[in-house]
Amino acid sequence: MEQHKCDWSGVVCRGGKLPLQGYNTVLLFLALASIVFIFVWSTSTSLSSHGYETNKEMKKTSFEPSSIIRRPSSSGSCSCKAKTFNVTSAIEASKLSAIKKRRAEEYRKQLIRETTDLDVVLVNPSNSPLQYPSHGFTVEPLKMTFIPGLGVNAYGREVYKVSLCASHGVIAVDSAPHGQVMAQNQSIHIIATSVDDLNDLLAHVTYTSVVYLLKAGDLVHFTFEDHEAIFPVTIKKPTLPVLYDLGEDINSQVTIAVKTFLRYAELRYLIKTIRERYPDIRIIIADDSLTTEKVEGHNIYQYIMPPAQGWFAGRNLAISQVTTKYFLWVDDDFEFLKETSIEKFVEIMESVPELDVLGGSVDTNRFYFTLEQEEGADGEGGCLSRLHKYHKQLPGFENCVLVDGVVNFFLARTDSARRVGFDPKLNRVGHSEFFMDGLGRLLVASCSGLVVGHQPMHALSKYQKFRHPGKGDENMKLKLHYFKNHLKCVTF
Amino acid sequence: MEQHKCDWSGVVCRGGKLPLQGYNTVLLFLALASIVFIFVWSTSTSLSSHGYETNKEMKKTSFEPSSIIRRPSSSGSCSCKAKTFNVTSAIEASKLSAIKKRRAEEYRKQLIRETTDLDVVLVNPSNSPLQYPSHGFTVEPLKMTFIPGLGVNAYGREVYKVSLCASHGVIAVDSAPHGQVMAQNQSIHIIATSVDDLNDLLAHVTYTSVVYLLKAGDLVHFTFEDHEAIFPVTIKKPTLPVLYDLGEDINSQVTIAVKTFLRYAELRYLIKTIRERYPDIRIIIADDSLTTEKVEGHNIYQYIMPPAQGWFAGRNLAISQVTTKYFLWVDDDFEFLKETSIEKFVEIMESVPELDVLGGSVDTNRFYFTLEQEEGADGEGGCLSRLHKYHKQLPGFENCVLVDGVVNFFLARTDSARRVGFDPKLNRVGHSEFFMDGLGRLLVASCSGLVVGHQPMHALSKYQKFRHPGKGDENMKLKLHYFKNHLKCVTF
Repeated sequence: MEQHKCDWSGVVCRGGKLPLQGYNTVLLFLALASIVFIFVWSTSTSLSSHGYETNKEMKKTSFEPSSIIRRPSSSGSCSCKAKTFNVTSAIEASKLSAIKKRRAEEYRKQLIRETTDLDVVLVNPSNSPLQYPSHGFTVEPLKMTFIPGLGVNAYGREVYKVSLCASHGVIAVDSAPHGQVMAQNQSIHIIATSVDDLNDLLAHVTYTSVVYLLKAGDLVHFTFEDHEAIFPVTIKKPTLPVLYDLGEDINSQVTIAVKTFLRYAELRYLIKTIRERYPDIRIIIADDSLTTEKVEGHNIYQYIMPPAQGWFAGRNLAISQVTTKYFLWVDDDFEFLKETSIEKFVEIMESVPELDVLGGSVDTNRFYFTLEQEEGADGEGGCLSRLHKYHKQLPGFENCVLVDGVVNFFLARTDSARRVGFDPKLNRVGHSEFFMDGLGRLLVASCSGLVVGHQPMHALSKYQKFRHPGKGDENMKLKLHYFKNHLKCVTF
Repeated sequence: MEQHKCDWSGVVCRGGKLPLQGYNTVLLFLALASIVFIFVWSTSTSLSSHGYETNKEMKKTSFEPSSIIRRPSSSGSCSCKAKTFNVTSAIEASKLSAIKKRRAEEYRKQLIRETTDLDVVLVNPSNSPLQYPSHGFTVEPLKMTFIPGLGVNAYGREVYKVSLCASHGVIAVDSAPHGQVMAQNQSIHIIATSVDDLNDLLAHVTYTSVVYLLKAGDLVHFTFEDHEAIFPVTIKKPTLPVLYDLGEDINSQVTIAVKTFLRYAELRYLIKTIRERYPDIRIIIADDSLTTEKVEGHNIYQYIMPPAQGWFAGRNLAISQVTTKYFLWVDDDFEFLKETSIEKFVEIMESVPELDVLGGSVDTNRFYFTLEQEEGADGEGGCLSRLHKYHKQLPGFENCVLVDGVVNFFLARTDSARRVGFDPKLNRVGHSEFFMDGLGRLLVASCSGLVVGHQPMHALSKYQKFRHPGKGDENMKLKLHYFKNHLKCVTF
């Protein structure tokens, strides 16, 4: 979208350092330099971790004229430890250059979507007579809004002149009771003969964004004499709420979702054990078996896919059909035990509204993990490690921990899980991938005491032949990680 | 999650008004009041539009001690004009009270998910010796990070004492070369005997959040003598990139998605016209016909749903299976014309990375609309109006406008459309609902010149019998809007 730089030519808006004056009884004013630092973090870092170096360097430049300090675009290369999959080497050498180029271009466009002019650090000027909204001024696109909190706290001038200038919006004064207002490009200049008149005018200043985007930002420059300040404007289109009705019992709160392939005996047994405890709960089945059989029953919905279409394709299909706030994911060879309690899951999720996924245990297997990502050097891709640890205990729940991924038995918010999705490109292999795509997008916890059983495996079944992925599948997954997740290596 | 209020008891952190001193040759300092205004907007407004009243009221209180000004929790009731559906009256009177209560509770929990301590406006103190990062300081949960830009610009004291205090993080000093540092609760107090030593110490201050959330905020209080400032800390867990490979031609960029019900003749004809122009493009069919027929062919994937499962359920299923960056939505009774060009859609979308949906025309019908939402009074629900207008021209494309909804022939980013989703609760009726749920979440444009044809309708078909919704369906939709979108009326 178009961008106008804040144009200061011909306008009384100078940054500058006023001489520091020491403690002196004959001094009228202790006028101190007004400085604004803008630290611009290169946008290439904005998709991964933030970090600030020591601000020693900033200290050297403090109280000096406005300057832009650019942080180096990446802090250096990253490397994966131990059992690492070198993702880059999964790509055929002859294709690597073209793929890398496409990936860089896609990454660039993604950054355009995700960053705004507000991805900078602003440091206020000290000892400045300017008052302004340093944080939180938010407007809707194209809508005129009064700017709160503008003022000048200075005395003894014959004439007061201030300027305000924006890049993505128009600044105006709603009325001009006592004073002059001149508009020039995207700036206004206000002149008043008393500080009260000036502040009266400043109380009538409005901002109207000229960009129409869901999320954008602007930086307004506010100057008075040698003082300059910059404050942020958040431009945001409001969303319509999308809420789920929990209804009156577990059946209106949770749907059971399962993907099946060539395991009708196991699937039917699973359903039997579910129905013993939950006679009415909806069960959604995504089925890509080579030859399908009808699986019928009260409140059972079976969806037939093209044969062997795939594991994650089936998972994504199943959750696309859920109408309740939550779904419980189960594999087709699980079995509900006496202790299996969906209500326990819901209780925890409802107590912690920020949670998106809550994992339990399959038999005694309470698998969970965290994912640590590090940025790579320019264009290389990042490094991701899966670790068997947790971030911290879930506050208020001593049997629960906050993690990044869990076992394949979990309750999830339908909206959050759909927002991340199970990538239908993953045919036979996939587990962590959902949580990788969900990193930073899903708040995940794991609790003990939320159990389901696992039916014994039948060797020599048709399923087994398909189940174990070959090198081809693993390679396909790595190639996917290279591009999709902008990685160079993954440690499991 | 837990919340600790910033505890100032026993700590040298007082807000206060210093006497304003006029122009006077014998004055040593023009010490001016340091004030921080915190304007707390009630969280109940945060899910809909922002608005600021004139800051006249703020002007009266400027340059006075810290105060919290609460904006009234809603600006008043809203009403829908003209042809309005009173959503509330669609709910059975006997159930309304219980449903309203559940909705209020769900809304409350949604606000917890969506708001942080940073949903306030901060106004900086004027004429304050404090320097601090007024905007943009961002940290990862639980990770120690240096605070940039902290400083005190004051001279002539025997001793310099500052305090820093947070609510959701621990503040510490990395080292204490020359000075004293005392920690108390979530505050630190720094004492130094020269301003250079003080600023050296301030260059070593770190912040570590104690909350683990995907998105949170903290407000740090920074005090020196009678001066106090508050600056925001954004706590954000970084996301892993999720990118799509556009590959090398239209077939790797776009999938065609269609939902069909009892219209195999039309569907087969549509496919024929697609294949004449696009012999290899993937076509995904979601089929909930009462009796199904196999629809086969190169790169055609048919998914069989439970009979009459529903229109939006089918749409959500179809898009859940897309593996390309974009999908083109078509209805099963469209036909591709000579002029139908998917490449044109892609070209525009690729030029404007922020776009999510791009609509065309069906025959001569280039339907588009905007949606205007207004907040209602407490608990009532909001008002939504659908208007036949546009927001503004798409910059750089004179044949295109920015809107909120389009006709049923559009190209969409797969990830964005899945994030919003087609609500599977909508069986027979639904069009605007996708765009309603997408309001503020999808950037939508409509261009002329992107055309598809429409097959003539066959009267007396089985389809016709199902197609026209009864009062029951309309009522179901209104009840859904009441709860899901927290509305009281909708104008179409």
